[in-house]
Amino acid sequence: DKPFVLISGPCQIESREHALKIADFLATETKKAGVPFVFKGSYDKANRTSLKGQRGIGIDAGLLILAEIRDTFGCPVLTDIHDIEQAKRAGEVVDILQIPAFLSRQTDLLIAAGETGRTINVKKGQFLAPWDMANVADKIASTGNEKILLCDRGTSFGYQTLVSDFRGLPMMAETGYPVVFDATHSVQEPGGRGGSSGGKRDYAPALARAAIAVGCAAIFAEAHDDPDNAPSDGPNMLPLEWIPGFLADLTALDRIAKARSLKAGF
Amino acid sequence: DKPFVLISGPCQIESREHALKIADFLATETKKAGVPFVFKGSYDKANRTSLKGQRGIGIDAGLLILAEIRDTFGCPVLTDIHDIEQAKRAGEVVDILQIPAFLSRQTDLLIAAGETGRTINVKKGQFLAPWDMANVADKIASTGNEKILLCDRGTSFGYQTLVSDFRGLPMMAETGYPVVFDATHSVQEPGGRGGSSGGKRDYAPALARAAIAVGCAAIFAEAHDDPDNAPSDGPNMLPLEWIPGFLADLTALDRIAKARSLKAGF
Amino acid sequence: DKPFVLISGPCQIESREHALKIADFLATETKKAGVPFVFKGSYDKANRTSLKGQRGIGIDAGLLILAEIRDTFGCPVLTDIHDIEQAKRAGEVVDILQIPAFLSRQTDLLIAAGETGRTINVKKGQFLAPWDMANVADKIASTGNEKILLCDRGTSFGYQTLVSDFRGLPMMAETGYPVVFDATHSVQEPGGRGGSSGGKRDYAPALARAAIAVGCAAIFAEAHDDPDNAPSDGPNMLPLEWIPGFLADLTALDRIAKARSLKAGF
Amino acid sequence: DKPFVLISGPCQIESREHALKIADFLATETKKAGVPFVFKGSYDKANRTSLKGQRGIGIDAGLLILAEIRDTFGCPVLTDIHDIEQAKRAGEVVDILQIPAFLSRQTDLLIAAGETGRTINVKKGQFLAPWDMANVADKIASTGNEKILLCDRGTSFGYQTLVSDFRGLPMMAETGYPVVFDATHSVQEPGGRGGSSGGKRDYAPALARAAIAVGCAAIFAEAHDDPDNAPSDGPNMLPLEWIPGFLADLTALDRIAKARSLKAGF
Repeated sequence: DKPFVLISGPCQIESREHALKIADFLATETKKAGVPFVFKGSYDKANRTSLKGQRGIGIDAGLLILAEIRDTFGCPVLTDIHDIEQAKRAGEVVDILQIPAFLSRQTDLLIAAGETGRTINVKKGQFLAPWDMANVADKIASTGNEKILLCDRGTSFGYQTLVSDFRGLPMMAETGYPVVFDATHSVQEPGGRGGSSGGKRDYAPALARAAIAVGCAAIFAEAHDDPDNAPSDGPNMLPLEWIPGFLADLTALDRIAKARSLKAGF
Repeated sequence: DKPFVLISGPCQIESREHALKIADFLATETKKAGVPFVFKGSYDKANRTSLKGQRGIGIDAGLLILAEIRDTFGCPVLTDIHDIEQAKRAGEVVDILQIPAFLSRQTDLLIAAGETGRTINVKKGQFLAPWDMANVADKIASTGNEKILLCDRGTSFGYQTLVSDFRGLPMMAETGYPVVFDATHSVQEPGGRGGSSGGKRDYAPALARAAIAVGCAAIFAEAHDDPDNAPSDGPNMLPLEWIPGFLADLTALDRIAKARSLKAGF
Repeated sequence: DKPFVLISGPCQIESREHALKIADFLATETKKAGVPFVFKGSYDKANRTSLKGQRGIGIDAGLLILAEIRDTFGCPVLTDIHDIEQAKRAGEVVDILQIPAFLSRQTDLLIAAGETGRTINVKKGQFLAPWDMANVADKIASTGNEKILLCDRGTSFGYQTLVSDFRGLPMMAETGYPVVFDATHSVQEPGGRGGSSGGKRDYAPALARAAIAVGCAAIFAEAHDDPDNAPSDGPNMLPLEWIPGFLADLTALDRIAKARSLKAGF
Repeated sequence: DKPFVLISGPCQIESREHALKIADFLATETKKAGVPFVFKGSYDKANRTSLKGQRGIGIDAGLLILAEIRDTFGCPVLTDIHDIEQAKRAGEVVDILQIPAFLSRQTDLLIAAGETGRTINVKKGQFLAPWDMANVADKIASTGNEKILLCDRGTSFGYQTLVSDFRGLPMMAETGYPVVFDATHSVQEPGGRGGSSGGKRDYAPALARAAIAVGCAAIFAEAHDDPDNAPSDGPNMLPLEWIPGFLADLTALDRIAKARSLKAGF
């Protein structure tokens, strides 16, 4: 029944200056709106559609910037990891380790992440049913770490399209773990631009509102000062200027949703 | 920006007494909640999964009962039609003619419905994209009748499952016609019980909340005093005792949603 | 274990001359190839994507032309029907009545078709599972008419795309009725051109080969002398000049497939 | 136009004796049938549905057994790898390195595999379109290694179901790389047994026949002496006694398919 959390930031940590600038904006706006904030940034994009896609700043530089953002703005920071070694290293720095959707069934990665003792945000694979996430969570919980978040970022629906099944949020909540809705990757069009993914950011606010209405614990939404020129996920990231209205809409709905729990248990 | 409308009633008009009893309950509860109410009932189930499924009371008896309900409770009434002849006959009695999803591409039926001058609620075929509904609406509007409602009742997602794509509601709203969300058929599991359809009514309230949060104009939700023993759609109809809480949840969310229009135009 | 049958012809009966010309070509080529031939032509396209799509020549003219084709070329003729009245009228003339996929759950139409005593080719709705066709066949068989063909023309797969599930052919064959594979509608892209459907005819021969290899009884494939300018289904119809090679490929594979029944019973 | 290759073996290398016994059977039967044979076995199942699923014999023991099988039976051997270190180590021993479907977008793994100089069999992610595999192949080819096989093992279709899109085989062949069809994983039902995947092996032979008919270069099909009691993939592996008939069916169809190339270029 606590208010929703916003997990946001640019898809990639493009540079120290850029990441700090976006963190500053988001920290300020979430504070105004009374919304708890987690900064998200990736140091490496390990699964780009094409080899030509930009990879990122690297783990050493990335973790330093994330630590600086946490110290500067007082917010928890989140990043995604791709192998056991990265789990250990990033786990020394960040508050929340994220398991990418494609890797959500990789047992060793889930266990390595769990063993760091950090909170783990696992994205539901686009190829998994919501109820499959109980088995995924069990792999992490086997380490004794039950600080687990289950995140929906869309499900494969034909080619190059994802669909968000809002029955899935209460289904995942039946595990007892908080459920996160990723509003910007859910409107991605995988591979839709040939050498990179497309997307329709215009529909992200509608999906976020729907997720809040069914009662989810956090909204994940990437944001950028110039999304049309961002090195990755441009078509689906939110422009910064949308954030104040986005937060105002969601906080108003969230108060209602959290005050009323659904008959069906969510 | 007007408050949402509830379209509700039993799947089938089982008998005069039964229909009146349910209409009475729904009229009373929607009045208490300040929600405009449309009574829905079918006189014929023309596309049951199996031949053994009960068909219904027939058009003559059905239309008489619908007229009585309108006169008794002062609410508009809606029924679904399956051929040109039925369009004409039902069009003389009911306020809203409904085109079943499977028939949403049958040009002659759409035109016959349009020509009655009644409001037409067209369900999006499970096999159609949201944007395909612009062509469907154009067929009706070609008769000069623009009193058109576009209704989402789920989209085919693998076998025996439907998924509700909440990007589809704003997409359909781009036509300018009001958008209805059918919360109970969206949780149907077509053919899921072999000789009849299954369903998971527990998720219908969550989907209705999501639809209200994105701003839709009306919620369609079938309701029954004993859904587990209803002759059709039992697994997905709402029990009557859920209705007061359902309305309270939705009206609270609706006030917020209607007060704030989404950046993306819905 | 009999050789496969080719059901072919233009999507629409555009004119007497055009239909006879295509029938002549197909009758000649199938005779050369030793393939039994059924001529297919529609007198009305009742469910075009858009109102602007051409409807067809009408039932009176259409049935006369179909009768002439049967008399001239000695082949059975097939057409699709959309209501009970058409079932009766077309049933007096044609050898095979076809139920369109969108109408495959309309009980009254299935029964009216069955009552004509003609062979009924029912297309599997794009929204149905292969095993749902057992209930569809039962509706027809309830009339005492068991001359039923079950035809796969693709299943909804995301938006504007169909996929052919080749597990579905043996599943449908478990009913005991012959299974037809519709190679040209399976490569349709519903609504893919905005006001009409798109398609990729280049993949139709591959799918037809796959269907023959799993042992199906007949291939349905529309053909046209100038598909790019045809009034409907142009993007997915086969050009006539593909037919001889198409038949040669399929007959060679069919001999092998029919000589060897699959362990899994198909 | 060369005859198809069979890639087969048990899902897991359960023990030296077990692997040798199955390899012996398959080597003997493929030799009789004149079908080139590649032995497949996994030393680690890194992405089991549930933590309770058995993982495997480990890389050290596994590679020794694979080397022994190659030496004993004179066949190439294939195994799947999950990280860069495994790519290097397995690349010193096996002839074909396989990239699991879930990992088909992991750039570093694809490059590490490519750099071994071995043949790489990449499975198409269940979440990818066939044409996305051109980007995947480019990542490998960027190492200068163009010994690439593209393998279809099914595409997500609703929950817990995969569908094999046979348009995808010619689409992937447009890259110029040989196309493999994985007949046994394509009939898997992911997560279908709660803590493990289900499957319907009865349909694997039909899908393999379809794949051969459209002209693919190799069939991947796991086989086991007691699939119902196998530690993984039991529901979809072929019993060894099916193999002789399976090979006879496929070789007969393959001769026809390879002799006739499709108009559409496959």
